[in-house]
Formats: sequence, C-alpha cells, structure tokens
Amino acid sequence: MTIIADKHTPAATSKRMENIIFLLVLFGFQIFMVVLYGVWVRYDYNERNGDNAIGDDTAVQRDVNSHYGYFRDINIMIFFGFGFLMTFLRRYGYSSLGYTFLVSAMVAQWSILVWGFFETAHHGHGFDKLYFNMSYMLNGLFCAGAVMISYGGVLGKVTPLQMIIMGIVEPIFFFFNMYIGELKLEAIDVGGGLYIHLFGCYFGLTLCWFLTDRHAKDSEDNSPSYNGDLFAMAGTLFLWMMWPSFNAAIAPSGDPQFRAIANTFLSLTGSTIATFLVSRLLGHAGHKLDMVHVQNSALAGGVVQGCCAHMNLNPGGAIGMGFIVGVISVLGYVYLTPIITRKLNIQDTCGINNLHGIPGFIGCIATVVAAQHGLNNKDLYGEQEFLAIFRAGDDQAKNNAAATFITIGVAIFGGIVTGCLMLLVKKIGGLKKGEHFNDSVFWHVPIDYPRDLDTVAADGHAYGLEDGGVEMTPKKDNDSDYSESERKSNRKRNSTEVKTDFGEKIAGEEGSPSNQA
Amino acid sequence: MTIIADKHTPAATSKRMENIIFLLVLFGFQIFMVVLYGVWVRYDYNERNGDNAIGDDTAVQRDVNSHYGYFRDINIMIFFGFGFLMTFLRRYGYSSLGYTFLVSAMVAQWSILVWGFFETAHHGHGFDKLYFNMSYMLNGLFCAGAVMISYGGVLGKVTPLQMIIMGIVEPIFFFFNMYIGELKLEAIDVGGGLYIHLFGCYFGLTLCWFLTDRHAKDSEDNSPSYNGDLFAMAGTLFLWMMWPSFNAAIAPSGDPQFRAIANTFLSLTGSTIATFLVSRLLGHAGHKLDMVHVQNSALAGGVVQGCCAHMNLNPGGAIGMGFIVGVISVLGYVYLTPIITRKLNIQDTCGINNLHGIPGFIGCIATVVAAQHGLNNKDLYGEQEFLAIFRAGDDQAKNNAAATFITIGVAIFGGIVTGCLMLLVKKIGGLKKGEHFNDSVFWHVPIDYPRDLDTVAADGHAYGLEDGGVEMTPKKDNDSDYSESERKSNRKRNSTEVKTDFGEKIAGEEGSPSNQA
Amino acid sequence: MTIIADKHTPAATSKRMENIIFLLVLFGFQIFMVVLYGVWVRYDYNERNGDNAIGDDTAVQRDVNSHYGYFRDINIMIFFGFGFLMTFLRRYGYSSLGYTFLVSAMVAQWSILVWGFFETAHHGHGFDKLYFNMSYMLNGLFCAGAVMISYGGVLGKVTPLQMIIMGIVEPIFFFFNMYIGELKLEAIDVGGGLYIHLFGCYFGLTLCWFLTDRHAKDSEDNSPSYNGDLFAMAGTLFLWMMWPSFNAAIAPSGDPQFRAIANTFLSLTGSTIATFLVSRLLGHAGHKLDMVHVQNSALAGGVVQGCCAHMNLNPGGAIGMGFIVGVISVLGYVYLTPIITRKLNIQDTCGINNLHGIPGFIGCIATVVAAQHGLNNKDLYGEQEFLAIFRAGDDQAKNNAAATFITIGVAIFGGIVTGCLMLLVKKIGGLKKGEHFNDSVFWHVPIDYPRDLDTVAADGHAYGLEDGGVEMTPKKDNDSDYSESERKSNRKRNSTEVKTDFGEKIAGEEGSPSNQA
Repeated sequence: MTIIADKHTPAATSKRMENIIFLLVLFGFQIFMVVLYGVWVRYDYNERNGDNAIGDDTAVQRDVNSHYGYFRDINIMIFFGFGFLMTFLRRYGYSSLGYTFLVSAMVAQWSILVWGFFETAHHGHGFDKLYFNMSYMLNGLFCAGAVMISYGGVLGKVTPLQMIIMGIVEPIFFFFNMYIGELKLEAIDVGGGLYIHLFGCYFGLTLCWFLTDRHAKDSEDNSPSYNGDLFAMAGTLFLWMMWPSFNAAIAPSGDPQFRAIANTFLSLTGSTIATFLVSRLLGHAGHKLDMVHVQNSALAGGVVQGCCAHMNLNPGGAIGMGFIVGVISVLGYVYLTPIITRKLNIQDTCGINNLHGIPGFIGCIATVVAAQHGLNNKDLYGEQEFLAIFRAGDDQAKNNAAATFITIGVAIFGGIVTGCLMLLVKKIGGLKKGEHFNDSVFWHVPIDYPRDLDTVAADGHAYGLEDGGVEMTPKKDNDSDYSESERKSNRKRNSTEVKTDFGEKIAGEEGSPSNQA
Repeated sequence: MTIIADKHTPAATSKRMENIIFLLVLFGFQIFMVVLYGVWVRYDYNERNGDNAIGDDTAVQRDVNSHYGYFRDINIMIFFGFGFLMTFLRRYGYSSLGYTFLVSAMVAQWSILVWGFFETAHHGHGFDKLYFNMSYMLNGLFCAGAVMISYGGVLGKVTPLQMIIMGIVEPIFFFFNMYIGELKLEAIDVGGGLYIHLFGCYFGLTLCWFLTDRHAKDSEDNSPSYNGDLFAMAGTLFLWMMWPSFNAAIAPSGDPQFRAIANTFLSLTGSTIATFLVSRLLGHAGHKLDMVHVQNSALAGGVVQGCCAHMNLNPGGAIGMGFIVGVISVLGYVYLTPIITRKLNIQDTCGINNLHGIPGFIGCIATVVAAQHGLNNKDLYGEQEFLAIFRAGDDQAKNNAAATFITIGVAIFGGIVTGCLMLLVKKIGGLKKGEHFNDSVFWHVPIDYPRDLDTVAADGHAYGLEDGGVEMTPKKDNDSDYSESERKSNRKRNSTEVKTDFGEKIAGEEGSPSNQA
Repeated sequence: MTIIADKHTPAATSKRMENIIFLLVLFGFQIFMVVLYGVWVRYDYNERNGDNAIGDDTAVQRDVNSHYGYFRDINIMIFFGFGFLMTFLRRYGYSSLGYTFLVSAMVAQWSILVWGFFETAHHGHGFDKLYFNMSYMLNGLFCAGAVMISYGGVLGKVTPLQMIIMGIVEPIFFFFNMYIGELKLEAIDVGGGLYIHLFGCYFGLTLCWFLTDRHAKDSEDNSPSYNGDLFAMAGTLFLWMMWPSFNAAIAPSGDPQFRAIANTFLSLTGSTIATFLVSRLLGHAGHKLDMVHVQNSALAGGVVQGCCAHMNLNPGGAIGMGFIVGVISVLGYVYLTPIITRKLNIQDTCGINNLHGIPGFIGCIATVVAAQHGLNNKDLYGEQEFLAIFRAGDDQAKNNAAATFITIGVAIFGGIVTGCLMLLVKKIGGLKKGEHFNDSVFWHVPIDYPRDLDTVAADGHAYGLEDGGVEMTPKKDNDSDYSESERKSNRKRNSTEVKTDFGEKIAGEEGSPSNQA
C-alpha cells in the first residue's frame, strides 16, 4: 500500500485541490441549470393543443400513458442497470454506483436544455420558451445511457472531477451527433444503436487512450469478487429484462412497436445462448464458464437491435443476429481486449468495445441492409408505416450509412476534446500508483472493505481491517512461504496456482485467456 | 459477547415469553382480519356502475389501467426499496428485510379496513358493505410507507413484538390524521408529503425517544459494512427511480399528472447533485464522499415534492427545491443527528429526520406558499384543474398550514401512545446490552455471519465462525498488541487509525464528523 | 477437498467430454431454432385484422398495451426472481443465476414453437405460418417458470449438460399437459396453478429422485451464507411484488382482472404473516426466525391463487387461503422435507414441494370447489363473465378435477423420461463427490470464492484464497484444537456449537429441525 493520506502530504493536498475545483464546477453547473430552466423551460400543457387541462383523453395524458411506462423501465436501466453492472470489481462498488448516480442525474438535467437548443435551432420556431414533455425526458435518459457506456470504458481510471467534466461535455457532442443523424439525415435509429451504443463506445474508447497508464494496467484491483459478480448480475438482468422497452419506447405504435419488443427479446435470447456456448468453448480449464462473458455478452442481442428492432426482420433473423453478435462479443473479450490493451494502450475496463462497439456497428450495418431491402420491397411495410420509418425516403439506406460513419467520427473527435480536458485536470489530484480501481481514494469505507491482494495472499483471507486510504508501510517479515514474484504472477493470471500457508503445491487450472486476468 | 442463548437462562426464557405474546397478537390479528374482511369487505364491481362485468371499457378496468402500474411501482418502493435501504448495517440485514416484509404486509391488510371505517363514517353511506378498489390498495401501501419511515428511526432497537404493535397502532393514527387532512381540511397532498413523510418521521422520532438507551447508543454494530452499503444502494435506487410514480399515482390526469412526474424527477436530480456536493465539501479527510449521504439525502428531492409535485411550479423551481433540501439533508446528517442523539436522547438510526422530517416540512411550507400563489394567480391553472387541486377553495393555503401542524401533533401524540405500549412490552424479552443491531438475537444465522468487532480487531478478519446468539466468554488473552481502549476509540470513530498486528502505526484519515460514527 | 482439476486426470477429461456434448446440443438447438423460426414463424400484424399498420387504436397495439406491462413483470419474475431466489447457497450463486439465465432464454425461444405446434394441431388451421403475438411470448415465460421451479428441486445436483436437456425436454411435456388442460378440458387456470406450479413441482421432484445420491445429501455446501440470504431476499421480494401481475396477466378484463390482482395481493399478505408466525413458533432456540421460510413460504399465497385468483372468492377467503398455505408450507419445511429426503431419497434443495407442490395442489382443489360453487350460484358472475371463466360449462368442476390429476400424472411421467435421459448423461462428466452445490466445478471463480467448510472451521474465516476446482491435499496438521468428528457434527446441524480457537466451549442453540441443516 502506497497511498498517503496524511493531511499534509503532497498527495492529500492535491486531492483537496481536486475537491475544490470539483465543488466549484458542480455548484456552477447546478446554478446554471436552475437559472436556465427558470427563464426558458416550461411544462408542456394541454391548452397548447386546445384541450382541457385535466382529463384522461387529453394530449398530455396520452403522452404520459404512452411513454411513462417506458421511461420508468429505462430509468431502471440507467441508474440500476448500468450502476450495478459495473460493481463486479472487488474494491470499486461505491464508485461504480455513485458516479453513475451523480453523472446520470446531471446528464438528465442538462440534456433537456441541449436537445432543446438543437431542436429549436433546427425548427426555427424561436427561442422564447421551451415546452418539454416525456419525450424530452426520455432523451435525457438515452444520453445518460451513452455517457454510462463511456464510463464503462474508463471505469476505475477517473477522478470525480473528471467524471463531472465528462458528464458536462459528452452530452454536447451526443446531441450534436443526434442533430445531424436525427434531424438532418433522418436516419433510422429506433433504440439508439447509432446515437447511444456506437457513439458512447467510441467516445469512451478514445477517452481510454488518454487515461490508460502503466499504473492502471498493472493494478491488481482490476479484478472481480464473488459478491461483486452477483451484484453485477443484478445489473445485467435488469438491463436484459428492460431492453425491449428501451428499443420500443419511441417506435411508432402498432406493428413497429410490437416488432421492436419481439425482435429485441428474441435477439437477447440468441445472444444469451451464444454467450454460454462460446464461454465454455474457450473456457478456463477447457470447459469453465466466465462470469464476465455472461454479464456482458448476453446483452449484445439488445445492442444489435438498437437501430432496426422495429423493422420487418424475420423472427429467425432476429434470433440469428443475436446469436452472431453474442459469439463475436465473447471472442472479443477473449482475444481482442488483451490486444487492444497491449498494442493500442486502450484499457477497456468493462469491455464496451465487445458489448456496444462491435455489436452496435454490426447492427448499424444490418440497418443499412434492412433499409435497402425495404426500399426494394415496399410491400414489407404498410403505406403509412413506410413513411413513418423511412423518413428519408429513397435516400434512407445511404443516409443511414452516412450517419454510421459520422457517428464514429463525432465520437472520436468528442473523445479527443474531452480527453485533452481530462489530461489537463489530471495534474490536479489525478490518480497515482495504487489509486486505480479503488473506492477508498475518494470514499470513506467501512471496516470490512476488501484488503489489498498482497495482504490476502499473505494472510489467506480477503476481508478484514480496512487498509484503504491510509499510509501503511509494506510488510517486511512476510509470514507466507511463497515469494513476492510467485504471488504476482499468480494473481495477474487471476488463477489459483498458489502455494498455501502450509506449504503444499496446488495444481493450477488455467486453460485459456481471460480478460479479467 | 454477552448474549446468553442457553435455554434455561433468564434471557432465553424472557425471549420465549416475548415469542408467546408475539404469536398470540399476530394470530389474533390475522383471525380478526379474516373475519372482518369476510363479513364486511367486497370487491368493487362493474355492475355497481351499470357496466358489464367484463370488457376493456368498464369502470373497474379503467381503474386497473390507471392505477395498477403505479401500485406495482409503489409496491416495489415499500417492500424492496425501504427493506433494502435499511440493510446497510453490518449485522442487521435479515431484520431490516424481514420486519419490513412482515409489518408492511400487516399494514396493507389493516389499512383497507381502517381507511374504510373513516371514509364510511365521513360520507355517512352506511356500514353495510365496504367495496374496495385499487385506490384503497394504494392507501395501504402509502400507510406502509409511513410505518417503514418510522421503522427507519427505531431500526435496531426493537423486538418483533414491538414491531407488530407498531404495525397495528400506527395505521390508526395515520388514517385519523389523513381523515382530518384529506376529508375535513381537504388539504393538498398529492404524494403524502404530509400524511406519509411528516407523519411517519415525527411518529418515529417520538418512538426513538422511548427506545434509545445507553446500550443502543454504545452499540458497535450500529455501523455499515461494504456489502451492506451495496445492498442499501439497491434500495435507494429503486426508491429514487420509482418516486415519480409515488407522487403521480393519485394526481388528477392530464397536466397535473405530467407535472407530478416531471417535478419529482427534476427535483430528485437536484438533490442528488446537492448530496455529492455537500458530502465532499464536509467529507472525511477533507474530500471523501460518505455512502450514508448518497443512500439517503439523494432522495430528499422526492420528499420535498410530496405535497405539491402536481402544482404549477417552475421547472427551475423544482430543481432548486431538490437542491436546497439535498444540501440541508446532508448538513442534518453531519451536524444535527449527533446533537439530537446526545442532547435529546433520540438515536435516529437511518436519519429519518434528515430525509423525511426536514425536507418534508420544507415541502409542506412550500405547498402553503404555492397554494397562496395559485389563489392569487388563478390563470396558472385551468378552470376544472383549479377545482380538482384547490378542493378547499379560498381556504386552501390556510388549511394546508393547519394540516401541517395537525400532522406533527397527531404524529407526536400517536408516538407517545405507541411508545408507552412499547415500554410496557420492553419488560418482556426487550433488548439487553449487546442485543441491539444484531440479527442473531431473533434470527437463525449462518456460519459466515459477521463477527463482532472485538474479534475482528483482534484477528483482523470480519467473517468467520458465527458467534451470534451464543454464549461466549470475552477473550482474555488477546493476541493483538494494541489495547482495548485504543480499539474502542478507534471503532467508535469508524476510522482507520489502528495499529496492525505487526505493530506499525497507521496514520488516521478522519477529517470530519460522520453520523455513522 | 477432493476435486482434481489437473488437465490430464480422468475427472478433467470427463468434464471436457461433457463440455463437447453440451456444445453440440446447444449449438444444434440454436440452429434448429433459427431455421424453424425463419421458415415458419411470423409477427402478428394489423393487416390480418383489416387495420392500418400503425396507430394507437389497432389490434396489435391494443395487444401490446394490454399485455406488455404484464410481460415485463413476469420477465422480472423468471430471470431475476427465480435466479436470485436460488442464490442463498454459499457457493452456488453463479450457477443459480447462470443456468436460470441460459435455460430460461432457451425455453422462451422453444416455447413459441411447441405451443404453436399444439395450438395449430388443435385448431386445424394449417401449418403454413405461425403468427405470434404477446400471448405467445407470455406462454414462453410461463413455461420457463415451470422449468425454473423444477430447477429449484435439483439445484446443485446438475451439470450444464443436464440443465439444457431439461430445458429442451420439459417444455414438450409442459405444453402437452397444457394442450389437454387448456384446449381439451378447458380447465380454469388463470395463473398457472395447474400448468406451472403443480406440473413444475412434480416434474422436478421426480427428477430429484434420479439425481439424489449420497454425495449430494452429504454435501456441506448445501447451506446458506449471510450475503447469499440477502441476495435471495431480492429474488423473493420481486417474485412477491410482481405476483399479482403473474396471476392477472391473462385474466379477462374487467372484474376478473381486478379480482386476480386483489386476491393475489391479499393472499400473499396472509401467507407472509403465517410464515413469520409458524417460523417463530417452531423456531431455533424456541423462538428464532429462519430465513429459508421467509424466502419461500411467504410466496405460498401467490401459488394457492394460481388457478382461481380471478374468481369471486370472498376477500376474507383470499386472506384465509394465503394464511393456511403459509402455515402448511412452513410445516412442510420443518417436518416433511427431512422425511422425504431420508425415506424417499428425494433431496428437494429449495423445498419446491412446500412452496409450489402442496400449496399448488390446495389451490387446484379450491378451484374445483369454487367452480362447483359458481355453477350452483350463477349470480356470482355476470353473464358474459360466466362464459369467459366457465368455458367448460356445467363440466367445469369435473374437468378441473381431471386436469389436476392429469397434470400430476404427466409431470411424473415427463420427469421419469427426463430423469432417465439425465442418468444416461451422468456417465459423462456427472457430479462426483465434493462437486455438488459448488460453482467452481463449472465456473471460473475469483480469489474470494468462499472456502470449503473444513478450512473455515480450522482457520475461523470464511473468505480467502479460493480453493475451488483445485487439487488440495487435506490438511494433516490441523491447528485447531477440536476434532474432525466434532466439526462434522457441528456443521451438519448448521449450528453454532463449536469450540473456538482459544478453546472455550460455546453453548449450542439449536432448538428445532431445519431443512437447511
């Protein structure tokens, strides 16, 4: 343990400086919100549509009836789903849940203003007042979803100050990209395959490039715990179960909304089956399942339907799409992630490239194909339905292809801008050696906070007197009879080949690569 | 450890006596329910409204369509949300979830009868049969919410017998207060700011005054665990995410219901931001976040909207209200709770005064102001809408003010009555030294039940052979090289200033007060 | 520890052989699905009903509006509810969640085809195309519910290969039974009391008979952990809270749907009260609650309403039914489960007989009585309502009685067929001594995977260096001063009568039998 918490050390001073800027930025943000909402934003209301203010059959109430159920489900996905999905790390549960909570709340506020700005600018109906409704609030959650995907990449490598900067800057690029795709190109993207998954992933990976350093890559705390994996499964399952709502929330009512639900559900079952299949095929000891795949790759079927869930795909096609991206996603965890970490210096903590990036890209390309197919076979859709889905008319396939690459471009550009900002603030209380993937750096932690792995290996038990956030001279007289280097190599592979306290050799069981190693 | 579990000791006898009375009361309650429901309560049915029994467009089905979704969400808040919110304690998870489960189920049954009694008495349409519908069932959950708030105050200081007494007596006062506020004064209270938060809090704090003793205040088990905090976040998040449903469930349809959803959501984002801001500002070591604030104060934005979420507040005002109560709530945890515990002998385990009491009171006062504002500016509301919200007409602001103070009065009076009953039964199996905040006193616990902190400090690990519920002579020959008094002071501050087994001094990191200490 | 994980040992070879067959079966299943869905299954669409493709008031959208909310809730019950309910075991959380995930996803796909086959055959409208809608998708979840109930019985005693065989074979029998009951006998079964609870339980118990061996019964890992019990409560609570949706999902709209919600909710409150009552009455040390009862028996009130929740029961009757099955369920855990394990060699891990079997059977018999009562008192129901509920007319009571016993018969027959298949594959990588109730056999586990109980007892702490899946010579020089036989007897009773490391005798507290022992 090398963390110095004494109040007068340089490290502690640096953290307090980070805190002061954090407080100023966050306070400024909130005051800005209150003022702008106060002068500019108003509730949508029935009189604007010539209705009575109250009643079941009024425009506002129909909007609530159609969208609030979906809003509620997507709310669960953002705050609970993404938050808990990231609790798998052994010492980073508070941060996973906490920063998800804070930043998503910020994004939900900020989004209504940013999207309101772009939409008003586009429609040119004046900046007098912005009347928001459930759709605006849904967009806030969608944007928070993109930011949480990016957070999955940089998880464990950021300070609170860096997080709130991300929460302020990323939505601007998010809605700029959506402005181009949704309002200019009129691309098909019913569940955010473009705007959320593709954008959030490549924005996040670009940030990773700025934030990955040797200390992050060497950190022993970038490993899961047993209870952490169970918590993470709660996140995974709620994401999985609510995903049909995510893709159907803004689908046109009637056939498209039903197909959005059905395709997403079928596709998710396909990716779940693929995950267990490939995870065992390439498994530890030749046959063992890996929780990291189950937690993530099983969701790829929802991602791949992000753009086109409401289209007239064949149900067998939906299952097949889910299956294929499930296979590719696990392959990504096993083979691609280690390479990207090593060669490109991009340490993708949650593997967002395998869950959102590649499956999202495949889904976007599939949408181009499905759009071209629909243009060639207009009888696949009803007349009104065709107009509702193919808003760009004969240019639909072309525009969707353009939107795909523009999204990647805007994401990387936005990631570079944000990454530079993050490097700038890294000088102020940025993470030092031993501070990555560690709640105790920015959180007060209880007595059973998991011990660092050196202590676990020496004493043989994982929970005990907290040692986080305190200065602790490394043990010299190690009771354990196996050497430091043995222990290192052992843990880096996350394996079980250890010598026990009582000096007996235990046969290792590792048979395959793992991204958790 | 001083718990004596030998079957023939006085303590064990006393617990068995408590059990006998518990069984008799609970059995009597259930028989009473079955008989009263059997003779008096009937399902509401379509024929009463001249409709066919079945069909989508019938009165009963419209009631289900309008309310069941909200009922479902509030069900999640009561049983899962409150239950898990209270699992943060290191050795009290079973009791938090278990008593929430039992008592909320009792209250849900009992409420339909009690509210049916008051409503029938008020409307004078005879006691022949009571026809209940979804609204009655919603009221059952609302009342359970108030009881769970009170439970948050006395958490860890009650026996099962005391809990079921609370579950039987509190609803009577709850509905008596609601009878005055809702039926006599026709106060504005769309989401229970008065009847649930204010009432539940001051009822609970009054009970606390009766139940706080030296042993409760000295208990070392009144401290969180790492996994417990993660479980508690699951409760927090579901409360947070479902809160718009809570405040919108019985709002008039149309504009008011949309505003109830939007104001609650915006206000919650404001309190979340405030929580992180103030928690870091006053944080440990000058900058560290505290989980207890995140778990609780982030919810204050929902509480403050309890009365007036459906009113025509400015959206910026909704964010501002949430922000202000978020700030005040954290300040309450840091400064007020320790004072109340020490000076008034009221040990408020979950800090309900900071989450429900003060934010609820601020919300009630804000409602008085908003009502007066609405009376002065009637064009803020549609004509029908005004009649639906301002049921008391020109007296609305006055009546709401009256209801606020009547609520506090009834809560304290009810708390005194219930507190006296609790003292009465405290002689029978009441909690002794070492039995507070401890599942093992009334639950069978598994082998990895967390160890008592003396053992943790001595051996350095938190989970192992269970020692709960068994007689265990305190260790004399302590292997650890730091003294009992050092350990005591250390743990009371929940800090990390310890000497390790290997005799090295570790610098403490505490920089600020904490209510968890 | 006797598990051998060396790659060249016979055990490891056997596991890899199991894996190869697992992969082939699962891959074959998925290809089969994609092809069959591709050629045969199509989305239901509005044009079939002469509607426009899009619009709120179209047949497809009305189907989505009526059923998607329930689908979403039942989705939560199957994947989250059942999955987490089974995480109580100390070393089996990954498997509980993982196999629930995989097998339920398989069943959801497979069900649409199987039920489509039976329904098409019954209605004789040709096998050209199968148009599926939300009801078909609901049936998939219902069938997954039955399979998960069966899994609860065999939990900890199956390999992944055996699980997927169960997931493929059980739905065939499930839908065959439903074909007889639903289409031929037109039995009343609104919430699957017959098809799900009764069928799933007796199918599962029959499998148990095949899978219970000495090693399973002797396994020390068939015991709960503290955190595991908290996770399991999350599952229990979501099952409890969503159960009204389960029983109301396909009830006729109007009075029957409201009664289905109300009866289920009231009945659940009754069983919850009964659970706490009897659990304390028969409790450990004469008064202690048992988590296993709270997690399971509290749900019996939902099961007993499985057939008849929508009928005109008296509300007091609904509470009474819940109370009675709650009492019987706890009695089953305390007295019946140990006998069945010992005398019939049926080790029912989760006690599905006490939660689904007996309460389900009582509910089925109550439905026969309620049907006869309805036939004798036709004024209990509206005219149209009577036709909707009593589809078999004057034969209703008789047909329901027949369906009850046919269900048990088909379940046992199907269980025998599947059990024989499982014995067949048991030769290939089947569970050996020490491999039951143990994640590490088929999952890669992290460093804090709970230690085996021998090590816990010797060292006094439960979490530490993982020892799962590795060869480990039993310790000879045991530091602990109590003997192997003492430790054995201690743990088998799951009790706390231990000698501590410092040699002091601790008085045991066991006062009653427990199924967790």
